[in-house]
Amino acid sequence: MNLTLWIGLLAATLTTSSFLPQALKTWRSQRADDFSWSYLLLFGIGILMWDVYGWLRQDAAIVIANSMTLALLSVIIFTKYRTER
Amino acid sequence: MNLTLWIGLLAATLTTSSFLPQALKTWRSQRADDFSWSYLLLFGIGILMWDVYGWLRQDAAIVIANSMTLALLSVIIFTKYRTER
Repeated sequence: MNLTLWIGLLAATLTTSSFLPQALKTWRSQRADDFSWSYLLLFGIGILMWDVYGWLRQDAAIVIANSMTLALLSVIIFTKYRTER
Repeated sequence: MNLTLWIGLLAATLTTSSFLPQALKTWRSQRADDFSWSYLLLFGIGILMWDVYGWLRQDAAIVIANSMTLALLSVIIFTKYRTER
């Protein structure tokens, strides 16, 4: 495996795993006021499109990474929805 | 251009542009308390790695999209740093 591929895998691991501490903080604090609805929805639909893209290209890494991100992002979306009504 | 490529471009446009309304909200409210430092730093380093990956692969679209995301993410990071000290 070459350096470029390793850097791509490192990048994917970092951007996906970054949502784990964020989802934990949001869940524990039950606060998501500082998040923009536009950000959450555009980013969420974008991640869903990455999943479709990965599925069409039969690229398991893209599908797995983006499904994990979407699951963690859902914690933020649901917390904001529940606490802002 | 085939459907798969269009979906990939749509996904990239959505995930990058989602940070524009977020950066505007954060800048105007001067509040980023609900963001996790771990998220901001891991995601930021991850986006920087995507930039390196795009540069190594000579892929202008990856470099441009991730540079824009990084610039917008910086607004959130600097706001959190300035308002939490």
